[in-house]
Amino acid sequence: MILLHHLRVGRSIFTVWLLEEFGLDYELKVYHRNPETNRSQEDLAKATPLGKSPTIEDGDILLTESGAIAAYLAERYDTGHKLAPPKSDWKAWAEYQRWLHYPEGSAFLPLMLKLLLTREDPKPPVFSAFSDGEVALHLGLLDKRLGEMDYILGDQFQAPDVGITYIANMAERLGELGPYRNLKAYMDRNLERPAWKRAKERAVE
Amino acid sequence: MILLHHLRVGRSIFTVWLLEEFGLDYELKVYHRNPETNRSQEDLAKATPLGKSPTIEDGDILLTESGAIAAYLAERYDTGHKLAPPKSDWKAWAEYQRWLHYPEGSAFLPLMLKLLLTREDPKPPVFSAFSDGEVALHLGLLDKRLGEMDYILGDQFQAPDVGITYIANMAERLGELGPYRNLKAYMDRNLERPAWKRAKERAVE
Repeated sequence: MILLHHLRVGRSIFTVWLLEEFGLDYELKVYHRNPETNRSQEDLAKATPLGKSPTIEDGDILLTESGAIAAYLAERYDTGHKLAPPKSDWKAWAEYQRWLHYPEGSAFLPLMLKLLLTREDPKPPVFSAFSDGEVALHLGLLDKRLGEMDYILGDQFQAPDVGITYIANMAERLGELGPYRNLKAYMDRNLERPAWKRAKERAVE
Repeated sequence: MILLHHLRVGRSIFTVWLLEEFGLDYELKVYHRNPETNRSQEDLAKATPLGKSPTIEDGDILLTESGAIAAYLAERYDTGHKLAPPKSDWKAWAEYQRWLHYPEGSAFLPLMLKLLLTREDPKPPVFSAFSDGEVALHLGLLDKRLGEMDYILGDQFQAPDVGITYIANMAERLGELGPYRNLKAYMDRNLERPAWKRAKERAVE
């Protein structure tokens, strides 16, 4: 059975969701943030290579990085290609890879800058300008694409939609999602999925 | 033949290196940064989905994100498993995925903060503290691991070593690599590889 090291509150609820979408059996080991610093604590640092969540264990495999966990679960367990395209279609598979890497590879950084900016006063101008430009670029791209298709790879929900929904959700919490109505509608639609509801019930005490 | 949209100077020289390691035929389309802002320009924005480099074209496939490009090239063209493990060994394959996602998924962000911090005066304290802690965490992890093995996945150079070398190289350019002697030695060793030298000769005018 898969064990997920799950830090409350954070990114790994989206890995719980993915496990639910795949229909896999899993256990959660729950960790909490230091209430003063909001950082993770020694218990998670001892259990995982970087003190980061999500990290999964699957037999003797210990795996971290949200995108790598998604790629691994899909490749190993989604043998019916419910949530990832088969490699017989290289174009679809390349797009799938692109959007698996995109959340942490591109969109997360400017949103993380926005989060850190909420704690700086005065606001440093280089960080402010960079994050403004990049947030607009990325949310604009996603919004345009999701005006043309229901899901990030077309007309079906696939594994990368979990990471993209995470990005939309982070943008919303930062008050940045307002102008991007297609992205907002997409997020709201995905958060109605039964697997997300099961994830929340199980992982959010 | 693969076409690489290659922005000078930046991340995509490492994709050129990977193409050379795979022994693939490729063409380069070279773009330059705006000399005043150091940002990429309209020509790259028109040619690629986000105005970002590296982006590759392979027939009717247009693919961006460094990690996704590496995953795609390995899966499609490295059929002899010279630079990526076969999926008959799930543990090795999971580790391979982890380190493919790691450069952009984890290590790049705090180094990017360091880069932006060089342009801020006074230095914003939240960004400074966050980047100091995370840079030490990530470079420390890499340094420890590369004290125990020659390459990021063990005793053989594999595709993820390209991304890890990029991180080490970025750290060095920011003056952050000094204390991490194993990581520095690893980088120096990798930059002696004939494929890197061919990449530099071809991509750096």
